[in-house]
Amino acid sequence: MKSSTGQCLELTLFGESHSASIGAILNGMPAGVPVDEAEIDRQMDKRRAKGNISTKRHEADRVIIESGIFNGYTTGTPIGLRIENTVQRSKDYEEAKFLPRPSHADYTAFLRYGGYQDYRGGGHFSGRLTAPIVAAGAICMQALARRGILIGSHIRTLHTLSDRPFSTDEALLRGEIAQMNDADIAVLDEAVRVQMIERMEAAAKAGDSVGGTVETAIVGLPGGIGEPFFGSVESRLSAFLFSIPAVKGVIFGAGDQMCAMYGSEANDPFYMKDGKVSTKTNHNGGINGGITNGMPVRFTTMIKPTPSIFLPQETVDLQTGEDAALQIHGRHDPAIIHRARVVLDSAAAIVMLDLLIERFGPEWVAEPKKEAFPWQNTD
Amino acid sequence: MKSSTGQCLELTLFGESHSASIGAILNGMPAGVPVDEAEIDRQMDKRRAKGNISTKRHEADRVIIESGIFNGYTTGTPIGLRIENTVQRSKDYEEAKFLPRPSHADYTAFLRYGGYQDYRGGGHFSGRLTAPIVAAGAICMQALARRGILIGSHIRTLHTLSDRPFSTDEALLRGEIAQMNDADIAVLDEAVRVQMIERMEAAAKAGDSVGGTVETAIVGLPGGIGEPFFGSVESRLSAFLFSIPAVKGVIFGAGDQMCAMYGSEANDPFYMKDGKVSTKTNHNGGINGGITNGMPVRFTTMIKPTPSIFLPQETVDLQTGEDAALQIHGRHDPAIIHRARVVLDSAAAIVMLDLLIERFGPEWVAEPKKEAFPWQNTD
Amino acid sequence: MKSSTGQCLELTLFGESHSASIGAILNGMPAGVPVDEAEIDRQMDKRRAKGNISTKRHEADRVIIESGIFNGYTTGTPIGLRIENTVQRSKDYEEAKFLPRPSHADYTAFLRYGGYQDYRGGGHFSGRLTAPIVAAGAICMQALARRGILIGSHIRTLHTLSDRPFSTDEALLRGEIAQMNDADIAVLDEAVRVQMIERMEAAAKAGDSVGGTVETAIVGLPGGIGEPFFGSVESRLSAFLFSIPAVKGVIFGAGDQMCAMYGSEANDPFYMKDGKVSTKTNHNGGINGGITNGMPVRFTTMIKPTPSIFLPQETVDLQTGEDAALQIHGRHDPAIIHRARVVLDSAAAIVMLDLLIERFGPEWVAEPKKEAFPWQNTD
Amino acid sequence: MKSSTGQCLELTLFGESHSASIGAILNGMPAGVPVDEAEIDRQMDKRRAKGNISTKRHEADRVIIESGIFNGYTTGTPIGLRIENTVQRSKDYEEAKFLPRPSHADYTAFLRYGGYQDYRGGGHFSGRLTAPIVAAGAICMQALARRGILIGSHIRTLHTLSDRPFSTDEALLRGEIAQMNDADIAVLDEAVRVQMIERMEAAAKAGDSVGGTVETAIVGLPGGIGEPFFGSVESRLSAFLFSIPAVKGVIFGAGDQMCAMYGSEANDPFYMKDGKVSTKTNHNGGINGGITNGMPVRFTTMIKPTPSIFLPQETVDLQTGEDAALQIHGRHDPAIIHRARVVLDSAAAIVMLDLLIERFGPEWVAEPKKEAFPWQNTD
Repeated sequence: MKSSTGQCLELTLFGESHSASIGAILNGMPAGVPVDEAEIDRQMDKRRAKGNISTKRHEADRVIIESGIFNGYTTGTPIGLRIENTVQRSKDYEEAKFLPRPSHADYTAFLRYGGYQDYRGGGHFSGRLTAPIVAAGAICMQALARRGILIGSHIRTLHTLSDRPFSTDEALLRGEIAQMNDADIAVLDEAVRVQMIERMEAAAKAGDSVGGTVETAIVGLPGGIGEPFFGSVESRLSAFLFSIPAVKGVIFGAGDQMCAMYGSEANDPFYMKDGKVSTKTNHNGGINGGITNGMPVRFTTMIKPTPSIFLPQETVDLQTGEDAALQIHGRHDPAIIHRARVVLDSAAAIVMLDLLIERFGPEWVAEPKKEAFPWQNTD
Repeated sequence: MKSSTGQCLELTLFGESHSASIGAILNGMPAGVPVDEAEIDRQMDKRRAKGNISTKRHEADRVIIESGIFNGYTTGTPIGLRIENTVQRSKDYEEAKFLPRPSHADYTAFLRYGGYQDYRGGGHFSGRLTAPIVAAGAICMQALARRGILIGSHIRTLHTLSDRPFSTDEALLRGEIAQMNDADIAVLDEAVRVQMIERMEAAAKAGDSVGGTVETAIVGLPGGIGEPFFGSVESRLSAFLFSIPAVKGVIFGAGDQMCAMYGSEANDPFYMKDGKVSTKTNHNGGINGGITNGMPVRFTTMIKPTPSIFLPQETVDLQTGEDAALQIHGRHDPAIIHRARVVLDSAAAIVMLDLLIERFGPEWVAEPKKEAFPWQNTD
Repeated sequence: MKSSTGQCLELTLFGESHSASIGAILNGMPAGVPVDEAEIDRQMDKRRAKGNISTKRHEADRVIIESGIFNGYTTGTPIGLRIENTVQRSKDYEEAKFLPRPSHADYTAFLRYGGYQDYRGGGHFSGRLTAPIVAAGAICMQALARRGILIGSHIRTLHTLSDRPFSTDEALLRGEIAQMNDADIAVLDEAVRVQMIERMEAAAKAGDSVGGTVETAIVGLPGGIGEPFFGSVESRLSAFLFSIPAVKGVIFGAGDQMCAMYGSEANDPFYMKDGKVSTKTNHNGGINGGITNGMPVRFTTMIKPTPSIFLPQETVDLQTGEDAALQIHGRHDPAIIHRARVVLDSAAAIVMLDLLIERFGPEWVAEPKKEAFPWQNTD
Repeated sequence: MKSSTGQCLELTLFGESHSASIGAILNGMPAGVPVDEAEIDRQMDKRRAKGNISTKRHEADRVIIESGIFNGYTTGTPIGLRIENTVQRSKDYEEAKFLPRPSHADYTAFLRYGGYQDYRGGGHFSGRLTAPIVAAGAICMQALARRGILIGSHIRTLHTLSDRPFSTDEALLRGEIAQMNDADIAVLDEAVRVQMIERMEAAAKAGDSVGGTVETAIVGLPGGIGEPFFGSVESRLSAFLFSIPAVKGVIFGAGDQMCAMYGSEANDPFYMKDGKVSTKTNHNGGINGGITNGMPVRFTTMIKPTPSIFLPQETVDLQTGEDAALQIHGRHDPAIIHRARVVLDSAAAIVMLDLLIERFGPEWVAEPKKEAFPWQNTD
């Protein structure tokens, strides 16, 4: 039943593609984090549908803060976030309700919920549910930024095209993250960016879709964050990442390349750098034994091509139990990777803030309002 | 603090490499599952150190069942599993306690636990903690097997060597799984198997280590298993898999290849086969929208080279804050991938049984003892 | 951070007395439960402020179903429930924000959230947050009623007045529950009911408040429900009951009287009655070892007098650290016990449904939609 | 399936009355708490069977620390605690396995586990499972004591006999707690103590049993501890307390008396005392809105008479479904209240330490080992 996650900071999602609203409850956010609502809008913008390379369903996706923020600060009690669904076109789905789209959750939700699932637009399994993740992530990022922790992603590959990887130098990496966070389509190499947009447009025109991989980096994390075994940074992050529709693989650091190295090549030697324990390489993506070592955390997420394509497909009719042809109508994305990157950033922000609260307690994130206790020592 | 995991079936690990015992509590196992203790031993054997290609630390690893099994059946209350540590050589670690091994948890555990961690042999982060996972998994597998669900793995790649993939035909796949479950070193292609052993031996001789990838398949799962978002099969499996030491990447189905396909190539068309909804390809690894679709579940796990190598390495001295040279002594594995596969099988068994209980309730797993209620209808 | 609870059926609350909305997410409700929205309204009515014996804040408290119910049935995915706050009068609280009301959460929330709490009307600690509990409970009760499980409460004592206890005969008890569920002020003895209303009105007139105890019964529960130790029916129920503002004590069965009995008097002898194992007395309130035995579950909840009274009180000024006089303004209840009983019923419904799902699986609650799978056997 | 509990500090129990061992995993204990094993023994002694007023089953109950404590300090990873069952006499139970003892878990466990439960000595539902709770609590108490937090209990009533209540003066209360913690039978009034022992001996002689109530106090807790709703101090404590066999009621502060007071009498006025916000009375038992207010936390636990008595009882034969006579053999307690008080103290210690970690983070409990990081600033 897990539409909720987190140990000290719990996120609970609700909503369906065509329900009245979608939203999230963020529970456990420490009190006293200043929240800039314009910054939430800015993050939501990154996820918004974009021109020819996105769905024609254009939702305003304005985030309504129902609770948990008061006078510009988090109160410490649950933050209610809600987004109205306003432009549903449910009839697109009515006629095909027994014709599951290949590679989509239509058939499996049908089995899981015994025929009672909301079949319109993917129901609870719709990519729309990532909107409240972004809203929650935008708040968490503001808490992290106060501690110098930055998160950013770029499209590492799109179909057969490749961007250059993030820099291994931490100072340069900070610059690249800032640049990506300002970009509309997050690609480091400008020429590749143009090619990627062309590839997405071509797929759209062909009624087809493309996928790719996204590289994400987190800088400024203290060492010693993460829990053993099922609470490892990799376990927590991957559990969240794999909950995002279309994600089919996650690699930390140079996990894929390390499999073909000798240990003597793969191991990241420790050395002192500017009075700080560092590693000369970062094949482990900033994580040893599931716990951060103070180097940038890096991971790559694999996103399959959007399953909703306009080309004719084969399916079965769940009412008759016979093979059937499927022609999808409606409004769909020829690629979601350029919209997904901010969802990945948000996932990383929520997971890392949770682990930081677990490690250091809520007052590491935000200190008590000193002026409210002028007459006493509050510890 | 998460050394425990699971929703309806909770596994809690305890122990350190050199503590008195290691073990696990398996809580939520339905009552009435017959448990064959010899089968637990058989699974433990697969994880056991093997000749030249494993650590010289040879533990008997006999599993003591402390509770939860009575007269050969699970009682429904927590199953206590314990394994004594008998052949610790703690002095190997005493001299190097402030010299963290690169790519190992030594340094990060030091930060995480503020200097109080048990530094001997990796403490709680040791690969030894996978022994109770195998013990718990062996019980879960017995429950799954009664329902026709089989799990198996093979070494898909070792360093630069590749085995052939598991068959795409379900009947053939069942045969391959059975074959791998009987094998000492699980490789499908006999010639490759010989080469892989040679490669591990060569690495051992050189004081170095190698890693690789393991392909795992689960057959016989009903469709409709898994929960939305953070409870997706992929989220639950990956959270467990990434908790296993040395795992750095997880891919479901052909997740990596799908990133370079068009949607029209990647989507798995549905069709009726023998009166059952099936898919013509299985790029999604049996999972759509996080929920099983009735096809075999398939995933690939990336395992980095064992970080403990005998070649000289660079590190820092945590007492002085200066660069230092490290020469590891002790007993270590030149590769763990051949021992890890049963850990991956066990992880899959524990996670899938948990999800099955959540979906169908405990009595799907084991029915009440009818002879105990001869006079009444117990529902 | 626990504004959420439940094992297989999770309830998460959000909102503050003066925030935009309050609400709840009910996650894990099995798919296929028919939901009558008029019945939700009917339950909400029982909680509504009543004439002279309640707050002058009259909220419409219309429940907006944001998600999770489709075509009159639960979908199996999270149910979003929202209630708008419409008639806040925040200025009542602005002037006294540093003058905590005795016995209320004002001071402790101030400490807990470091001065950032929403101090208006009790913030997240307001009794208003019980409204979404009632909304969620109303849905759960509909699921339980289909299985013949009924829940009801009456005011057992109010201040120094006592109602007669619920009947020990199960058939009579069912009648009393039905009667209480139709009553505006739930008291079995009509004469006592009149006296109790007079006592509440007198307290209101005096600017004071009264409390009392509520007796709750659940009939029709199967035996064998509940989990060992921290999952016992008593643990789960009490954890929920004590989360309801003003609850200060919980007794199961004749727990208080049993303390002064001998074991030979207190034990409930088993005997066969109509082919069913029953007990001759029910001092244990239908629960042995934390698990239901098939007899009615009974418990008594102690509710302290509403802390917000209009008589002058002593407090401290949190800005100056000096003693201060407090004169409360605003709109408050002279008693909440008559409104609280439906909250207790709701708590019991949510907890018991959770335990039933854990015990029997979701399909015990609602069966798959058979007409959707005419061509196949879905198990 | 909940034999585990806790948010940041998780306790998991395992074992059955006649299994090989019983024990607990305490997960989330901060690193760096010095643990005096003799103190664990001292607490275990308080729970031990005592002369004529306890079971004749005399277990050594030596606690084996399997993991999580190293060089006298907690390591921060799971603490494994195990106690061997050594003097089982299973045949006492074999003949009566289908004759459930009234008011015991025999019948309900039979239903819950479908006939597969370990019926010997109450199985997992045995009072023996409180031994690992005491072991875990003894460690938590050592952590709390370093912060000046003390916990103690006394027998408030036994059958019809009453001890005087704990003092309302905090300094006197500290003295009484210390005195009770040193006492073998914890009663404040020496004359009453003698009477109570006589009453227990008389019950034992009659083959009967007695119960009573225990008053527990916690002093030294900071204000602001506890979480809203389901994480309230009352919710967390009661959930744990009701998991202890024989507990049937829990009252916080003067919860029972407040029900018959006016709000103006019941409310605890705030005032400044020695520069600290205090309350003039403490009817709320140190908790407002579920969160501590800095006053002593006080609660009363109702413990029913031990259900295992030697007088003949009525039951049913679960094999034949017919009424039957029951004559219990074996070794049972005529009262457990004098042994239970240390279990209640332990429960309180585990719950409060969990809430303190959640509120302030693990380093509030124990600071990093400064000497291990002489060269660096570790934040």
